[in-house]
Amino acid sequence: MPISPIDRSRQAEFQQFIDQKTKPLGALGQIEDLALQLALIQQTTTPTLSTPHLLVFAADHGLTAEGVSAYPSAVTYQMVLNFLAGGAAVNVFCRQNGLQLVVCDVGVAGSFDQNERGISMPGFVKYKVAPGTRNMRYEPAMLPHECEAAMDAGRTLVDGVVYRGCNVIGFGEMGIGNTSAAALLMHRFTGLPLTQCVGRGTGLDNAGLSHKLAVLQAVSDQHATAQTPLDLLTTMGGFEIAAIAGGMLRAAENGMVILVDGFIATAALLVAQAIVPAVRHYCVFCHQSDEAGHQLMLETLNATPLLSLSMRLGEGSGCALAYPLLQSAVAMLAEMASFASAGVSEKV
Amino acid sequence: MPISPIDRSRQAEFQQFIDQKTKPLGALGQIEDLALQLALIQQTTTPTLSTPHLLVFAADHGLTAEGVSAYPSAVTYQMVLNFLAGGAAVNVFCRQNGLQLVVCDVGVAGSFDQNERGISMPGFVKYKVAPGTRNMRYEPAMLPHECEAAMDAGRTLVDGVVYRGCNVIGFGEMGIGNTSAAALLMHRFTGLPLTQCVGRGTGLDNAGLSHKLAVLQAVSDQHATAQTPLDLLTTMGGFEIAAIAGGMLRAAENGMVILVDGFIATAALLVAQAIVPAVRHYCVFCHQSDEAGHQLMLETLNATPLLSLSMRLGEGSGCALAYPLLQSAVAMLAEMASFASAGVSEKV
Repeated sequence: MPISPIDRSRQAEFQQFIDQKTKPLGALGQIEDLALQLALIQQTTTPTLSTPHLLVFAADHGLTAEGVSAYPSAVTYQMVLNFLAGGAAVNVFCRQNGLQLVVCDVGVAGSFDQNERGISMPGFVKYKVAPGTRNMRYEPAMLPHECEAAMDAGRTLVDGVVYRGCNVIGFGEMGIGNTSAAALLMHRFTGLPLTQCVGRGTGLDNAGLSHKLAVLQAVSDQHATAQTPLDLLTTMGGFEIAAIAGGMLRAAENGMVILVDGFIATAALLVAQAIVPAVRHYCVFCHQSDEAGHQLMLETLNATPLLSLSMRLGEGSGCALAYPLLQSAVAMLAEMASFASAGVSEKV
Repeated sequence: MPISPIDRSRQAEFQQFIDQKTKPLGALGQIEDLALQLALIQQTTTPTLSTPHLLVFAADHGLTAEGVSAYPSAVTYQMVLNFLAGGAAVNVFCRQNGLQLVVCDVGVAGSFDQNERGISMPGFVKYKVAPGTRNMRYEPAMLPHECEAAMDAGRTLVDGVVYRGCNVIGFGEMGIGNTSAAALLMHRFTGLPLTQCVGRGTGLDNAGLSHKLAVLQAVSDQHATAQTPLDLLTTMGGFEIAAIAGGMLRAAENGMVILVDGFIATAALLVAQAIVPAVRHYCVFCHQSDEAGHQLMLETLNATPLLSLSMRLGEGSGCALAYPLLQSAVAMLAEMASFASAGVSEKV
């Protein structure tokens, strides 16, 4: 299915509709920009947000053997159990703001088989490609068919929520080590120096950061010949990043509003955009992460985030926190009076 | 009633409670700072937000005779009618996010007498001190007893919502010409040059901005001898600004969480803080306005706003938009699992 670029033929009409609301011209700032984007995506002055979902993909990374993270790899598995028990930040914020949370094991190093551990819940999807990627320091993170399978996990889950009437979807991730994969993808897709792409992740100290940078330089050198978007994703990505890239592309094919979270999710968008540039039109950038590199990443995308709260958590938490601002934009369009209808004088 | 400075004796305990949540240390950024502040205000690890209200004070300004605004003064009255009809931005955002809206005519140049116009609604309070301030270019904006009456309007309305069980309150305003009063108060309370305090308000062009600056310089010179906070407020403030300052002080006396909106509301806080500095402890800064000067004003208060969406509307709209982030902070404290309870490993 192709992705349609946004149809801008009615843009002036939509802008005029916004400008006639009872407020000084442009006084609602980014809420107005967001309203215009939603109107353009849905081609109506009164867009709606239906059955919002957040898909969180979890996977492990072979590169963690090189000591690139402040937390042990086992935390990926443990945090998925925390998601399933409803105790993580993203659970809390999704409940608060009315987003349906779906958690997908696309490559965690640990079994969630319900016969083994009695784990089964609505909204938990098992689509495990492999128990973690390979160590990309020495070999490609994924085999081509593994990368394709991970992307298919994203597409499949999006198809599932479309069937439920969803038209706005966020993507989150959990994967100890995945700021390394994201930094490498940023480096290779944007051409920015690796030093500007690498950050502290979950909390590395200075020595840890230096070590991470050295490891990632070696990884990039190891895969110097990778060129196409799929090659780069396969060699230096992660299952959760591939799933998000695939999911974003399918969401854009369906004309859905895409909520873009932080550093990892935006790296997945870099991949998706390199495959089909028009995916960018459907993206709402929910927050700017405190992870070094994310601000630059957003700048290369010419993206202005809704929130900038010094967060660096992932999980899609930024999507869940920003979601009420989308509701505000929609409500503004639907409910605010116009100068004419309210009998308010316009500018002198 | 005195304002109690925040009791920080349990701060380490509250911080530890936040640090034990299942996330990297500090990874929720400003949401964590906000959670700590709410915990300190209410002296509990599980603060609550009860019956949130937004009080919008409307008043006119005699200085508009000098041509300092892009909109005619009549818009104040018209916009109050728009509030009462439910069609303004703040109505929309309060409905969306569950805040009770109270609109108060504290000095609008026009009658809302229900016998005349049939206007009567729950949440509309008539507390008109006078039909607009005097022209501060030539005389003090208010007489001392008028300023006191306007501050009393704020206190009275806060007392009313406390009686309803409210413990979190935002303040908004409507008043054509009030960025002029706010800029003058900023100038005199912070000592910053007037050029850094004056902005385009509802949308002045360059010529209009130059004229506004010249008028405001003349006003400041006219009232050069005013020194005390009350003198400055009386000579160069506005009824809605005085009402907000009075309301903020009473809210802090009651230990309530105070939602601070944009340029005008923050100028009112400058007044309130000069009267009782501890009011600052109860303040959550909801957004940074696009009005020139607000960023500097926030910096002098050492305040980090939750939102920065290039808005410049007033009405308390920033409070209503930011409110879900307070709910997120409260939910994070109450609902997120700890490392111990979730069985998640801590940092290596």
